[in-house]
Amino acid sequence: MNLWFTEEQTDSLRLSFKVKKVLDYRKSKYQTLAVYETEQYGRLFTLDNFVMLTEKDEFVYHEMISHVALSCHPSPENILVIGGGDGGTIREIERHSRVKKITLVEIDEEVVNISKQHLPFVACGFNDKRVKVIIEDGIKYIKEHKNEYDIIVIDSTDPVAFAEGLFHTEFYQYVFDALKEDGIMVAQTEYPFLKSDFFKQIYTSLKKVFPIVSPYFAFIPTYPTGMWSFAFASKKYHYLKDLNPNFISEFENELKYYSTEIHRGAFAIPPFLKKIIQ
Amino acid sequence: MNLWFTEEQTDSLRLSFKVKKVLDYRKSKYQTLAVYETEQYGRLFTLDNFVMLTEKDEFVYHEMISHVALSCHPSPENILVIGGGDGGTIREIERHSRVKKITLVEIDEEVVNISKQHLPFVACGFNDKRVKVIIEDGIKYIKEHKNEYDIIVIDSTDPVAFAEGLFHTEFYQYVFDALKEDGIMVAQTEYPFLKSDFFKQIYTSLKKVFPIVSPYFAFIPTYPTGMWSFAFASKKYHYLKDLNPNFISEFENELKYYSTEIHRGAFAIPPFLKKIIQ
Repeated sequence: MNLWFTEEQTDSLRLSFKVKKVLDYRKSKYQTLAVYETEQYGRLFTLDNFVMLTEKDEFVYHEMISHVALSCHPSPENILVIGGGDGGTIREIERHSRVKKITLVEIDEEVVNISKQHLPFVACGFNDKRVKVIIEDGIKYIKEHKNEYDIIVIDSTDPVAFAEGLFHTEFYQYVFDALKEDGIMVAQTEYPFLKSDFFKQIYTSLKKVFPIVSPYFAFIPTYPTGMWSFAFASKKYHYLKDLNPNFISEFENELKYYSTEIHRGAFAIPPFLKKIIQ
Repeated sequence: MNLWFTEEQTDSLRLSFKVKKVLDYRKSKYQTLAVYETEQYGRLFTLDNFVMLTEKDEFVYHEMISHVALSCHPSPENILVIGGGDGGTIREIERHSRVKKITLVEIDEEVVNISKQHLPFVACGFNDKRVKVIIEDGIKYIKEHKNEYDIIVIDSTDPVAFAEGLFHTEFYQYVFDALKEDGIMVAQTEYPFLKSDFFKQIYTSLKKVFPIVSPYFAFIPTYPTGMWSFAFASKKYHYLKDLNPNFISEFENELKYYSTEIHRGAFAIPPFLKKIIQ
């Protein structure tokens, strides 16, 4: 069999994975969902034919979207995750015994369902008693919560369709207001190598709202360009000055990508990107 | 027109570039060479259908293979480049006024020819009077030179066919012998995310020969996985302790990827790779 899944990363760039088996393909109210068994990267989960995660490299994304903020906050008790319905992000947050409560707000229940059925390596995140799952629009949810969370993680899909509103100044202001006075927000912010206009816009927006803002980067082989960016946006704690290696000491041997050394290195911004966000 | 160039990165992974025009396709004694004009990345240069460089992202590879060693060596006067026949690596080395002499040993003259014809943005490297180009097998050349070079850069293709010998202990011993007593070698060492056995082998080999060895990493969107590795192997100078920001001060505003901050961050090794090379 010579079966391939192809992601059209842009109109002129495609990444193709050889597929052993199509495990699931379904439509929800919001999008099409699929899970493939691939030769190279194990299970592959897509939404509207865009790669969400693969079994072999998801650890990079989920460790980096979680542990960076958690390693800078002295008392991260109450965490909110917007999106992240596969469970990978909460799996990482749960490693921190300092965390008392995790609320996950996912708009599409089918993401949670398909993950529980086919992606046990991330869906295991739903087994923790500190987790509460709410199926609701993240924007609506965040508008109704003020001064409540220590850390908010925006684990969204790409900025298209219903997720587009998650990348604007107005939304960031709601996130700011939902955070406590020393809160931190982290968000995935796409691939700056090819989306430099978007990259500029998002950091301009964030700086209007938060006093401490920086992108950081990680190698994610199955995402476009392999260079993924995340935003660290904070009211009080600094991504380097407040980094405390003790906050991961109880489980650091279990981590595959994140370390204090990687944390520091991830905030090095290549000059061509520094220029864009200056 | 709907024309695509596809790289078979592995048997089960492909990256495809939309092509505006095929500018050249020729065969040399060693390999097939091609240059395409692509929609996404400008000009694309391939050898045996593997991506060597693109106009839009070549700066990452060429800055990172050059400036890391040059920023740690106090008197890099005599430099040897094995491979690198497109000219991109010597273009970067030439920025350093401390460099007095650059010898480039390329096995395939057609690489130099095709670059001069179609890739002016890298072939401009051949215009400097300090450069001497020798068309010869790099392994043969290096065996005949002892205690001569301050820095040797192995800017090779993938470890297949005639380039395979560039990745063994025996070859590294020749490089060691061709370096002066405080010399540094840098080499490209492929993509560890999918080639972990190779990654282990190469660093095991290097550590048998050099006292100071570390991989470092850079984001290269058009190479497999986007996570590229380079080896820093040195007789005396350390990649962090001997890093001197003054060595790039005369031209640092011209650089797009490399900076002292990026240099430090590039040596952060994710735990999953640390385990492999321990």
